[in-house]
Amino acid sequence: MTKTARAHTNIALIKYWGKADEQLRLPLMSSLSMTLDEFYTDTQITASHSGNHFFLNDIEQTGSSAQRVFTYLKKLQVQFKVTGELTVKSTNHVPTAAGLASSSSAFAALAAAFCAYYKLQVDRRELSRLARLGSGSASRSIYGGFAVWQKGTDDLTSYAYALNEKPQMDLHLLAIELNQCPKKLSSTGGMKQAKSSPFFKPWLARNQEELRQMIAAVKNNDFTCLGQLAELNASEMHAINLTAQPGFTYFEPDTIKAIKLVNQLRTAGLECYYTIDAGPNVKVLCQLRNVKEITNSFVSEFKNAKIVHASFGPGISYLD
Amino acid sequence: MTKTARAHTNIALIKYWGKADEQLRLPLMSSLSMTLDEFYTDTQITASHSGNHFFLNDIEQTGSSAQRVFTYLKKLQVQFKVTGELTVKSTNHVPTAAGLASSSSAFAALAAAFCAYYKLQVDRRELSRLARLGSGSASRSIYGGFAVWQKGTDDLTSYAYALNEKPQMDLHLLAIELNQCPKKLSSTGGMKQAKSSPFFKPWLARNQEELRQMIAAVKNNDFTCLGQLAELNASEMHAINLTAQPGFTYFEPDTIKAIKLVNQLRTAGLECYYTIDAGPNVKVLCQLRNVKEITNSFVSEFKNAKIVHASFGPGISYLD
Repeated sequence: MTKTARAHTNIALIKYWGKADEQLRLPLMSSLSMTLDEFYTDTQITASHSGNHFFLNDIEQTGSSAQRVFTYLKKLQVQFKVTGELTVKSTNHVPTAAGLASSSSAFAALAAAFCAYYKLQVDRRELSRLARLGSGSASRSIYGGFAVWQKGTDDLTSYAYALNEKPQMDLHLLAIELNQCPKKLSSTGGMKQAKSSPFFKPWLARNQEELRQMIAAVKNNDFTCLGQLAELNASEMHAINLTAQPGFTYFEPDTIKAIKLVNQLRTAGLECYYTIDAGPNVKVLCQLRNVKEITNSFVSEFKNAKIVHASFGPGISYLD
Repeated sequence: MTKTARAHTNIALIKYWGKADEQLRLPLMSSLSMTLDEFYTDTQITASHSGNHFFLNDIEQTGSSAQRVFTYLKKLQVQFKVTGELTVKSTNHVPTAAGLASSSSAFAALAAAFCAYYKLQVDRRELSRLARLGSGSASRSIYGGFAVWQKGTDDLTSYAYALNEKPQMDLHLLAIELNQCPKKLSSTGGMKQAKSSPFFKPWLARNQEELRQMIAAVKNNDFTCLGQLAELNASEMHAINLTAQPGFTYFEPDTIKAIKLVNQLRTAGLECYYTIDAGPNVKVLCQLRNVKEITNSFVSEFKNAKIVHASFGPGISYLD
């Protein structure tokens, strides 16, 4: 028997950047994301008769990424009292190092394929919780459109819900791949160090209010408000990294160039906003009528950058 | 009659970045600085019989910089009930756009020359207060070594004092002039916008504690502690700019490169820290034994950068 699930990546507009519990991947803050149509992972699970195997893009993995998958599968098997050796085959349709977290689509697809394979009766809330145990941001990739991961207080109450799976908002994303070097500091490492910033607590104290405002922007179809809040929230995350003790930054020289270009475009009347995750690449939020002109501006500023245009993607689906 | 005063620039290790009163130049926070030997302004005042004149580096100024000087002189004349038309001749020994505030040495020298010209009986505390009315950071350039500008509560209580005019600390500064473009946003404009950051109030709340720690580092001759505190404080200032609404940054791509180079050098055992003011240039704090190697590293990373090595400078002096 074979089961295959597809999950799309998501981009956080209110960021997850701090763990309350490392093992359970409980976050210190609630987050809000947009699921993207252009980037997804297909994951197939079949029975194995020779131990667990993990293939990524048709290449068998043996290192720490395979170990992470096997550990996760074991955790779910124990939780659901099921057994068996498995072969996992994942295909990532996420540009390498695009600065889009492939782990969000990867663990959402894996959790879904696992539950389908074992015919477990789980609703999407439960599926979100299970995906969270693999990678925090994966909890949000269960849903299409806009999703909110409520931080909750424990393993049972920390899961994402759909805020609006069929948004009418004119919202597009340009993923600007400036830099293909793998990041030097992992998200997990960065999150740990970020807690030492004197601004970390003040930021945490703002989370509920920022989330409330962003939910209102989504409900009001208010692109300007959404863009401003997303840019501020991302800036806060990077400000916190800069002021950690010792400070660090995911920015590269081109990140500053891209930030300034976004500002210039906005001043010139092309409304757009940036968001940046744990890497140097910049994602630009804009409206459809400006996609072409903004893309051209980035192409002429960054000769070697790859730019992918995305919009709202769907939630989990099953391919067999 | 001619009177000439010399004042050296200073670099803030705890930054002044916010005004409580724009007219009086009262700050929202106390600051602490190191006066630098390599950068200074000589200012001569003589009587004029044809209106006020202001020469900077032998060129008569007619625009807003002259107006600022004339307005300042008028303010002091009213305050001390003295009169007369004046010719001011200033020579700036500060590399243009080195990212070192020439206004600090400029207004300290101007205040001192003014008081000398009119034979006013003012002590250094009063001179510091008068310099502050011209440019906030000038209040600290009255003194050599380390100076503290206590924010005070009004015009009379906001002045700088000497913390240690003959420091024994092994502390050197490399001013790395990365970018010679004039900054797009003035300090005054930046300070205004910075107040809209959600982290501005938390930063302000930390000022007394940061100042206390820095004073202790100076008293203990603790270079490591001083460097860490200076780097954190500068990072906080730039984090606040990034998170203003709307956000802005004085960083240029090369600023990020320089920050990363400081981190690399430190990791490699060459202890150094950065501080950055309202511009893209980076100043590196280090000890004498590492000056050469750190300079060489910057020279090889930034082909066109000018690097000036400075250490402790003296307070106000008079040349005639």
